[in-house]
Amino acid sequence: MPTPLAADALLANLAWRYATKQFDPARKIDAGTWTKIEEAMTLAPSSYGLQPWKFVVLSSNADLRARLRAVSWNQPQITDASHMVVFAQKQNVAKEDVERHIQRVHQVRGGDASALAGYRDMMVNSMANPAGLQGGTMLAYTRAQTYIALGFGLYTAAQLNIDACPMEGFDANKYDEILGLTPLGYHAAVVATFGYRSPNDAMAKLAKVRFEPKDVILRM
Amino acid sequence: MPTPLAADALLANLAWRYATKQFDPARKIDAGTWTKIEEAMTLAPSSYGLQPWKFVVLSSNADLRARLRAVSWNQPQITDASHMVVFAQKQNVAKEDVERHIQRVHQVRGGDASALAGYRDMMVNSMANPAGLQGGTMLAYTRAQTYIALGFGLYTAAQLNIDACPMEGFDANKYDEILGLTPLGYHAAVVATFGYRSPNDAMAKLAKVRFEPKDVILRM
Repeated sequence: MPTPLAADALLANLAWRYATKQFDPARKIDAGTWTKIEEAMTLAPSSYGLQPWKFVVLSSNADLRARLRAVSWNQPQITDASHMVVFAQKQNVAKEDVERHIQRVHQVRGGDASALAGYRDMMVNSMANPAGLQGGTMLAYTRAQTYIALGFGLYTAAQLNIDACPMEGFDANKYDEILGLTPLGYHAAVVATFGYRSPNDAMAKLAKVRFEPKDVILRM
Repeated sequence: MPTPLAADALLANLAWRYATKQFDPARKIDAGTWTKIEEAMTLAPSSYGLQPWKFVVLSSNADLRARLRAVSWNQPQITDASHMVVFAQKQNVAKEDVERHIQRVHQVRGGDASALAGYRDMMVNSMANPAGLQGGTMLAYTRAQTYIALGFGLYTAAQLNIDACPMEGFDANKYDEILGLTPLGYHAAVVATFGYRSPNDAMAKLAKVRFEPKDVILRM
């Protein structure tokens, strides 16, 4: 059953979060807590429910993370954070991907499989015409979906008082090579690192900067 | 001070949420609660902190919402939900936008304005070369940022047990026209409607469909 949480507690945790620049390399997120962050990401919504993503989770592979750091402007979060997620976007959502989703819908909900034919055909037609998708290209479209999951991961971490850093400063094509994503049909879209801030991170002490609501919200 | 919330409570609310198809048009979100959802969206992170977005909030303008519904496949959420947000992306992040952000950083954090020159120049150079941004074009890049804010809005609504529906089924160019976004330099990226589900919404009773974690999470 759902239970509403206190808005002020949620907002206080969102205000507390910041893009952590220096993690404490000695502090690891325990496995049980990490699982909750993964679960939240998998619960993120996506267009048609197609989930055109893979979440590549790296927690202990120091060699691989050193290689990724080398193509991430040498940013220390890549090696020092407890966990790292590469949000990979599907390069092309094909008929098989729609079929896989439809099979899963039927598996979870049961009922008459033929009742899903119209829904399947609508999605297949939609994916066959990427210019008609929001974003105008398949890559812009699936990229955007992964940022919902990114947001769910960052939000959850903040609520658990775990630090995180969303990161776009990396060579996505090199990530694809290093992680072997291209043959799987995926492309590295965005990264987040998770762990605990170092007491030395000067960024932690700075006030959060946002435009004033009146400069962001248009009421019509 | 941050206070960790219970992971299981967060996840139960995420599992409860679904893309609401039928809202109860008689039930409105009270103003105080709505403000919290807005606050959470404004706290969403963005690349370099540039916040390349406007959140267009429509709560009571029935005429305008009827016009938007007509270019949204006539989906009833557009008129029946209590609140609606059009997440608009900046079409081009120019030097002036960077300057505006830098001014805000200085306003909030104080200190020596000249110390921000290097940060400003780095961002100006980055924005002047959209091919080097994640997504490869300015529109793909700013679109993705708005989906973080979308995620923060949906997540917060779920935690407050408010229903919502993320929506891509609308004519974005027509939205730009109707809302006058183009002269402001913005483009309608994605929509979310918020309110309370109708007791008649059959979708509310269906099990949530997600791929199994093993099909989404790659551990390396």
